Amino acid sequence: MADIESTLNPIFTKIDELKPQFIERLRKAVAIPSVSSDESLRPEVFRMADFLVDELKALNADDITVKQLGKQPPPVADANLQLPPIVLAKFGSDPSKKTVLIYGHYDVQPALLEDGWASDPFALVERDNKLFGRGSTDDKGPVMGWLNSIQAHRELNIDLPVNLVCCFEGMEESGSLGLDELIAQEAQNYFQNVSSVCISDNYWLGTKKPVLTYGLRGCNYYQLTVKGPGADLHSGIFGGVIHEPMTDLIKVMSQLVDVDGTIKIPHVLDLVAPVTEKEEALYKDIDFDVNELNLASGSDTAIYKDKRDILMHRWRFPSLSLHGIEGAFYGAGAKTVIPAQVIGKFSIRTVPDMDSDILNKLVIDYCNERFKELGSPNTFTAELIHPGAYWVSDPFNNEFTAAKLATKTVWGIEPDLTREGGSIPVTLTFEQQLKSNVLLLPMGKGDDGAHSINEKVDVPNYIEGTKTLSAYLHYYSITK
Amino acid sequence: MADIESTLNPIFTKIDELKPQFIERLRKAVAIPSVSSDESLRPEVFRMADFLVDELKALNADDITVKQLGKQPPPVADANLQLPPIVLAKFGSDPSKKTVLIYGHYDVQPALLEDGWASDPFALVERDNKLFGRGSTDDKGPVMGWLNSIQAHRELNIDLPVNLVCCFEGMEESGSLGLDELIAQEAQNYFQNVSSVCISDNYWLGTKKPVLTYGLRGCNYYQLTVKGPGADLHSGIFGGVIHEPMTDLIKVMSQLVDVDGTIKIPHVLDLVAPVTEKEEALYKDIDFDVNELNLASGSDTAIYKDKRDILMHRWRFPSLSLHGIEGAFYGAGAKTVIPAQVIGKFSIRTVPDMDSDILNKLVIDYCNERFKELGSPNTFTAELIHPGAYWVSDPFNNEFTAAKLATKTVWGIEPDLTREGGSIPVTLTFEQQLKSNVLLLPMGKGDDGAHSINEKVDVPNYIEGTKTLSAYLHYYSITK
Repeated sequence: MADIESTLNPIFTKIDELKPQFIERLRKAVAIPSVSSDESLRPEVFRMADFLVDELKALNADDITVKQLGKQPPPVADANLQLPPIVLAKFGSDPSKKTVLIYGHYDVQPALLEDGWASDPFALVERDNKLFGRGSTDDKGPVMGWLNSIQAHRELNIDLPVNLVCCFEGMEESGSLGLDELIAQEAQNYFQNVSSVCISDNYWLGTKKPVLTYGLRGCNYYQLTVKGPGADLHSGIFGGVIHEPMTDLIKVMSQLVDVDGTIKIPHVLDLVAPVTEKEEALYKDIDFDVNELNLASGSDTAIYKDKRDILMHRWRFPSLSLHGIEGAFYGAGAKTVIPAQVIGKFSIRTVPDMDSDILNKLVIDYCNERFKELGSPNTFTAELIHPGAYWVSDPFNNEFTAAKLATKTVWGIEPDLTREGGSIPVTLTFEQQLKSNVLLLPMGKGDDGAHSINEKVDVPNYIEGTKTLSAYLHYYSITK
Repeated sequence: MADIESTLNPIFTKIDELKPQFIERLRKAVAIPSVSSDESLRPEVFRMADFLVDELKALNADDITVKQLGKQPPPVADANLQLPPIVLAKFGSDPSKKTVLIYGHYDVQPALLEDGWASDPFALVERDNKLFGRGSTDDKGPVMGWLNSIQAHRELNIDLPVNLVCCFEGMEESGSLGLDELIAQEAQNYFQNVSSVCISDNYWLGTKKPVLTYGLRGCNYYQLTVKGPGADLHSGIFGGVIHEPMTDLIKVMSQLVDVDGTIKIPHVLDLVAPVTEKEEALYKDIDFDVNELNLASGSDTAIYKDKRDILMHRWRFPSLSLHGIEGAFYGAGAKTVIPAQVIGKFSIRTVPDMDSDILNKLVIDYCNERFKELGSPNTFTAELIHPGAYWVSDPFNNEFTAAKLATKTVWGIEPDLTREGGSIPVTLTFEQQLKSNVLLLPMGKGDDGAHSINEKVDVPNYIEGTKTLSAYLHYYSITK
């Protein structure tokens, strides 16, 4: 340990020294509007891939490989629209070292000045020790953080303590098209010796304490289809004389979840892993309270007031949300339609140890029974349209242990161990395909506004974050 | 009566003789694509008004007045879009005669060959003794019917038995913008001596028996707004920890109506006029059965199998339909949104003797109570956004008595007395503003496909319909 600290000290000094260059690197990255969801900006996404390749070349990366993924599948306006490439690179291939895959994405969410940005979203601006710009925290900041760390090592002529494999994609904000296939394809090839994966693409829970993230909920998405008349009908002529699909659907949807979030489908909660003492202890010191939830939701509508209850219900209990209805009237004003077919949408956020197949059967059987009770002559189908598994890691494994030491060294404080309520599907893909542990090591704060206007990363998070990534590699390199 | 029949015989013969000219008149009218909802076709709507003026001039109408209505209010693409005019004309002003206002509209629904029409919708085609073309039955056929009737009288040098006041509008398919104001404005002016109004703009109930229509349901349209978070939220992050507006809304909406159409709001049914023996008797001979309902709805989803039950629930009992939700996810596929604000839409079809204000209070109080029971911290508003009164006439008054005789004379059968489940708001406006009885005297059949592809009017309906309109004026002229 003492050895590592003496190794890290000059690296940290170098990182502080290079701060202006690192901010300049992020400025250049943010200046490229690589919005993957806007077809007209697709050339900018490619330009961003070129930028990364140039940076990797300048850092003397080995085996830089730009994986073209071909045409984007429909629906697209331009039938010849090409998917942005996945940029791969290696730093070192010493068989005596561990190999860490670092994943990040170089595409960003859309952003327009007129959405309410205080300044041009694609011109990085420093105000109050914060760097404002689209992608500053999601995910160009962290990607640049890795490049910064490599640069610092290079300038000091210090070897990286591990072999690094970079995997940077350009479609993360648009469904990561092509990524799963590439990972499967390269698992025994480009990614062959990877022993561990590190992803810096989420955020601190709040604004005061760094975190390490060891779990994500899954998401099983369902739809309920009620079909009656042959076409949409006029409620003047048919209201009161036929069985209306909307009436049936609303009755079934109303029996799925209570106002306090309790899932009404029997035995779903029986599938959930019990809370252990070890886990319970993790919640005690976490930096969070109900005010942060209210601030984030922009309302005073929290179901629970207690920190532990809120976090457990966000992270480790399932939830059921009703999202909407396809086929019904959705516009402003008044339209007197009886929709012929309506499709209710809802999803269940899944957690350990819920078995997806068992859950689906419980959900679908329950919906079918509720519909049957109605005695309606309309037809009813309940189905899963999109499964998504949860992910949970052991927050006491080598990766988390190393990341705790790195965080403590840089920030002088033990990180909170968090989960997230949402999904990062690639986490599970890496874990399964590469048979490696995955560590989520976020750089930004909970108030960074990823996906929102005035996205920012705090200067300390960007610079100390670069140190944390560096320190992690060193601590991880000496784990058994 | 014998007198009238001897007057009518030569008129009927003349109408048969003029049949080719009458079909030609309808052909010319259908050829003008006067689609009021398509701004790019607005010049055609004006051209159709010019066509009517020319026809009226050729028939030596008095006091032809084209009432310009000015700019169409927003939302419109062209801020200078002019409303089509209302074409007024008079035939005769003999103070010893009754004055009948005839209303019709010269605009039509949109129609494109590629929607599935068997032939160009704007080229009238005769097949199987039916005249196919947009507007053939709704409402150019009936409007031409009135002109045909006047022409037959003119050619025989027979005076019309009443003074006629024509009121033809060009925005009926697009909300009748400007019509109510014009009627109010002209009630004591152009429409001063009107004693009765006749509208031919609905349809036989089925295909075998002519009908007279004496009632229309009203429509009170409501919306329920549930507001929670400050913005749409991600269900991964907020699912299970905040009170979701959709959950609340679906709970309230599920308590409005049962699957069998029963309105669950207490005391609403208490407002409905009891069924009298006289009314009950009207249902016995009506040409209708459940198969016609199933054919029309394109499904086997009828709540009632018995003719009387179906018709009573369509015509003289209220119904409640759930139309949709504004603000929720409505697209195909999966979106994991928690909508911040959702607005549920439903309407109640109203019937005699429901008082609109009392109904609104019952509905809104009930919804407020159901929401309160939920104990949700979200905000809730229940409101009426669009009232629409029902209309019912005495089917034994002078107008209906004359129309029965006319129908019997032309068709050799007593007409069915029907109501309609939907609204024709101008009916009530005429009744109230002109303090006159209104008769709905339809020309077309229940399968004419108004608003649908392959709209048609049967040749016998067009020609015998012209005779019926003529006969009505004669029978009505001698009522006390």
